[in-house]
Amino acid sequence: MWYRPLVAVAAAAPFAPVLSKRELKCDGFWSKKSSGAGCPTAKPVKPVSPVPSDIDVAQSVTPVLVKEVFAGAFGLKDQDILSYGPYKGKINLDLWEKLKGKPNGHYVVVCGINPTPLGEGKSTTTVGVSQALGAFLGQKVLTNIRQPSMGPTFGIKGGAAGGGYAQCFPMEDFNLHMTGDIHAITAAHNLFAAAIDTRYYHENSSSAKFIWSRLCPADKSGKRQFEPSMYARLEKLGLSHKKHDPNLLTEEEIEKFCVLDIDPNTITWKRVTDCNDKYLRKVEVGLSGSEFSKKKNEQLKRTTSYGITVSSEIMAILALATDLKDLRARLGKMICCYSRKGEPITADDFGITGALAVLMMEALPPNTMQTLEGTPALVHAGPFANIAHGNSSIISDLIGLKLVGKDGYVLTEAGFGSDMGGEKFFNIKCYYSGLKPDCAVIVCSVRALKLHSCEAPKIVAGQAPAKEYREENLDLVEKGCANLIAHIQNVRKHGVQAVVAINRFSTDSEAELALVKKIAEENGAFAAVVAEHHAKGGAGAVDLGRAVMKACEAPSNFKFLYDAKKDAIKTKILKVVQEVYGGADVKYSEKAEAALARYEADPAISCLPICMSKTQYSLSDDPKKLGAPKGFTITVQDMYVSAGAGFIVVSLGDITFMPGLPIKPAYYKIDLDFNHTPPRVVGLS
Amino acid sequence: MWYRPLVAVAAAAPFAPVLSKRELKCDGFWSKKSSGAGCPTAKPVKPVSPVPSDIDVAQSVTPVLVKEVFAGAFGLKDQDILSYGPYKGKINLDLWEKLKGKPNGHYVVVCGINPTPLGEGKSTTTVGVSQALGAFLGQKVLTNIRQPSMGPTFGIKGGAAGGGYAQCFPMEDFNLHMTGDIHAITAAHNLFAAAIDTRYYHENSSSAKFIWSRLCPADKSGKRQFEPSMYARLEKLGLSHKKHDPNLLTEEEIEKFCVLDIDPNTITWKRVTDCNDKYLRKVEVGLSGSEFSKKKNEQLKRTTSYGITVSSEIMAILALATDLKDLRARLGKMICCYSRKGEPITADDFGITGALAVLMMEALPPNTMQTLEGTPALVHAGPFANIAHGNSSIISDLIGLKLVGKDGYVLTEAGFGSDMGGEKFFNIKCYYSGLKPDCAVIVCSVRALKLHSCEAPKIVAGQAPAKEYREENLDLVEKGCANLIAHIQNVRKHGVQAVVAINRFSTDSEAELALVKKIAEENGAFAAVVAEHHAKGGAGAVDLGRAVMKACEAPSNFKFLYDAKKDAIKTKILKVVQEVYGGADVKYSEKAEAALARYEADPAISCLPICMSKTQYSLSDDPKKLGAPKGFTITVQDMYVSAGAGFIVVSLGDITFMPGLPIKPAYYKIDLDFNHTPPRVVGLS
Repeated sequence: MWYRPLVAVAAAAPFAPVLSKRELKCDGFWSKKSSGAGCPTAKPVKPVSPVPSDIDVAQSVTPVLVKEVFAGAFGLKDQDILSYGPYKGKINLDLWEKLKGKPNGHYVVVCGINPTPLGEGKSTTTVGVSQALGAFLGQKVLTNIRQPSMGPTFGIKGGAAGGGYAQCFPMEDFNLHMTGDIHAITAAHNLFAAAIDTRYYHENSSSAKFIWSRLCPADKSGKRQFEPSMYARLEKLGLSHKKHDPNLLTEEEIEKFCVLDIDPNTITWKRVTDCNDKYLRKVEVGLSGSEFSKKKNEQLKRTTSYGITVSSEIMAILALATDLKDLRARLGKMICCYSRKGEPITADDFGITGALAVLMMEALPPNTMQTLEGTPALVHAGPFANIAHGNSSIISDLIGLKLVGKDGYVLTEAGFGSDMGGEKFFNIKCYYSGLKPDCAVIVCSVRALKLHSCEAPKIVAGQAPAKEYREENLDLVEKGCANLIAHIQNVRKHGVQAVVAINRFSTDSEAELALVKKIAEENGAFAAVVAEHHAKGGAGAVDLGRAVMKACEAPSNFKFLYDAKKDAIKTKILKVVQEVYGGADVKYSEKAEAALARYEADPAISCLPICMSKTQYSLSDDPKKLGAPKGFTITVQDMYVSAGAGFIVVSLGDITFMPGLPIKPAYYKIDLDFNHTPPRVVGLS
Repeated sequence: MWYRPLVAVAAAAPFAPVLSKRELKCDGFWSKKSSGAGCPTAKPVKPVSPVPSDIDVAQSVTPVLVKEVFAGAFGLKDQDILSYGPYKGKINLDLWEKLKGKPNGHYVVVCGINPTPLGEGKSTTTVGVSQALGAFLGQKVLTNIRQPSMGPTFGIKGGAAGGGYAQCFPMEDFNLHMTGDIHAITAAHNLFAAAIDTRYYHENSSSAKFIWSRLCPADKSGKRQFEPSMYARLEKLGLSHKKHDPNLLTEEEIEKFCVLDIDPNTITWKRVTDCNDKYLRKVEVGLSGSEFSKKKNEQLKRTTSYGITVSSEIMAILALATDLKDLRARLGKMICCYSRKGEPITADDFGITGALAVLMMEALPPNTMQTLEGTPALVHAGPFANIAHGNSSIISDLIGLKLVGKDGYVLTEAGFGSDMGGEKFFNIKCYYSGLKPDCAVIVCSVRALKLHSCEAPKIVAGQAPAKEYREENLDLVEKGCANLIAHIQNVRKHGVQAVVAINRFSTDSEAELALVKKIAEENGAFAAVVAEHHAKGGAGAVDLGRAVMKACEAPSNFKFLYDAKKDAIKTKILKVVQEVYGGADVKYSEKAEAALARYEADPAISCLPICMSKTQYSLSDDPKKLGAPKGFTITVQDMYVSAGAGFIVVSLGDITFMPGLPIKPAYYKIDLDFNHTPPRVVGLS
């Protein structure tokens, strides 16, 4: 009664291009590029029209054992992948030792215009282009995407595995627990939260002397020992030279060592849950009798909140860490609160860094999966792009670029528009990885561009789009292209080639598609190509795939938008606002100014890149301003530092860290179908 | 940079008994029983004295690929186990179809006397006997133990993989995330919690008509459709005949269908976290603006609490479900609260059962691991025995008894004493599985029995035990045996043979050990045997293993203590109190009486077995009453029903559902050692 029959490798046909050899060789460039078989397990889908539901499509295709996919594409051996069941696994990081000297392949980031309720198909395009390259154009290719949060899966949005005939699958594996990485983050994050509150309690109900007797108990002979996890705090206090004998500490030093002196009003470390639970947006904790301090004659309660797990700084760290040692070091630097004297208190001060690293250890290797057409995918880390940096992991890209080899392609998705996940891909992810992208794909659709015209009717949830979206309207398309142009220019400002993917919908007219293509190519796009992978799989994205390949051959001159180390924090923010958002100026709330002064004074913080937390729906900080607004002033409401992840979060408004459930959440449709043998999952989307 | 080198099968020696053939054949019984090789991957440990720390012992032994362990022991094929990395995996439940007609092996439960701070070594003995049977006595054997909560791992207690040279390992896999089963419970439990609060919010801020328009929206032609997940509620309301057309419902029926009418004061469904977080014992949720109801002009906040994940009813369900369909059915029956009219509201009423089942689907197959001596182990489910039923999963035992075959042995551990996990093993777990145990092992130690004399000095945390525990004192031992006798009698009352395992400590004298043996055997034990598996591995438990084998051949006449279906709830409680605890009578609080009246009136509830929630430290409800107290009256403080798990919880006092962190939690010692290649985990215990 396992839930999916195990499939022998034989079920997967060898590489089987649907394009004729002549077609592949019609141009010298292609014959040069498509010399090797891309992916031996590749097998084109057989599309049905109209396209069935995503889960029906996914369940109509027989997956290959994931080890076979990676063995076929990259020659990986059995021990290079640790299977987690038949269709998901983890890269054995030992592999890095073998790969690290090898050349990198082409690095392609996929982002979009500002998203609309109509959906542009960004994940779908990331997967579709991969399927085209791997299953039709004979290229070594790897899709690197984010692991979705389970909150939206059971809430409103559904999963994020792509759609139609361009999906990463099996969906049950992709959208549910995967290999437990997000759960590991929840566990590590909440252990730290428990440690903070409990330490606050102990410090306010016990004497420093008593805490000392517990932290460094004396044995019969009076000898004491520090745990190695305490060395970091000793170093911070300038007491490293005494680390081999706690008895050398003076009474004052003991007090300093034992009492973190947490200011409860400065605790920014929330708790997290991977669930849309709006009741946890604001909570009061510590209300039981066990949190009453007799010493202070006070209930040591506190108002705090929960965020969704993907908003955790630990998620950002997982996405940015380059190896296990780097992961541990970043975890130790996380600031959770400040002392009453205003000094930052970090995980290292709690002696908890090692435990957090141990909890995160197995989450570090990227997860191996496959696309519907049997090409390989890595699914790893899933920070949201509106509250965090919105990109899959550096480690996936580092490994992936070696795996595909010099002539191969890694496609990696950046969340939301080029102003959000895109900008952060360039200035945060590439800043820490040292990798240089060759090309950015900007996904748009005719319908979405019409909405960006600011003249088309609003989209109302649960209602069919107005006729403007279903009938040809070149005027709306042209006006809406202002948004697309802004995104092309953003990509070009980073020195990267931009390929526009026009995701075709059945209501689009040829003239509308041609107009978008023309405008895009006139405004700096290397190419703009209509794609139909949702309906046709990789076969529908062959032209787009070719354009991406050509763009990767074109000169690229990647550069950061700002100099993280030298620019003042305000300068970095202004550059993003003016050059990426098209705004004029930046105002700061009093709270933001105060934080800024503190951060600007600390060279370990002022040197960090910035991570803007703003609405994804507009280039501005107002979700209603569609198209390409100009001349606006944005307001920085708050700032905080993710010192472990290594960026300063600049909050432009109330972006919720915790989604809610609607009256009819997605869970109403999700079930097991016992009429099917073995039982199968229904209702995932 | 994987964290443990992958080991070829060749590293494991074939079955290598350290006992000579003559020794094995010294008695007709043994030669009959030890005809087949028990476990080809078995390989005796080479003990070092003094015994190093648990993690050092565990890391000194090279594990075998877990697939090889199960292939060797039971002939399992590659597809029968789904690997989760090299050393843990999951049984493919398809296997059940092949196994179900086969005969069961011998079924041995391991429990203890009432636990003391000195530790008796119950998990250690469960593993030690398995190692003896599998690696030294040539038997087919399987160890079935619980997955530990990560709360205590990072809090006080440490893990629960056994100890010394009798462990289930690798410890990093065992004590950390394993394959994510506990995380799946957290996710499912908290999704349900979010659904309850959010539904309460929606019902108090929207009209029934609006909710209807969302739950069953009309399409353009006015047609509506129920989701299959809504059928259960329709059936409850007597509206099943209208399930194919929502438009048939009258306005009153629509109101009934849409409005669960949750009484917020009756919500017993907490949230959970797998972390010792005392600040969550009592919390207030729903404090943000998004929980303000304009309709009611009221902040819809609520005081609630968190329990540790293993206390979740979903954990109990995982442990008791016999297959996926049963799992789903039990989830649907979980009662989370009552309507204002006093009707129970279940997961089925929320249309969330299918989603919960999908979240739990991959947690249902048991996890495969191994002991230090290469014998197979299943690790699955981990309810605490003081707040839940305290046993590993039924599904592990069902599969295990088939795997070991007619002549083989399954050793399964029940939490705490025979009064706690033991009683619940007999009257809850066996009640639902239909399995009959052949033998119970009761673990004790001389030191712990001395404490049960009630005359030995107290044990103070952090201080060495007093001299009474280190020097021979036959008087204290004899008095303390009163506790052991009570446990032997409890097992015998269930018609099961009792074998006493006297876990040897270096301070025990031969006379003390002999005295315990004599008293135990005079008081109904089939045998009482000194064991030294902690120091010697299976070789130290060969005599104990032989005693267990002989006991399994002796007549067994398993019976329940009470008739769950016919006895009144108070009768069931009185029987447990008088016959297992040795008490005289039971008092009920007003609250308990009220709940009892409600449950007694509902035949679907009154027929359930009972699950006592009481201190593990005493046979009574007072943790200070050691030994074998008599004539006491216990007080039932509260009762609640776990209708999905299928038992009535009888709470005898404030047992915390959420442990806390001490001043120096275990996490201070846990870290990664980067001086080792690959980096290794240190500090787990």
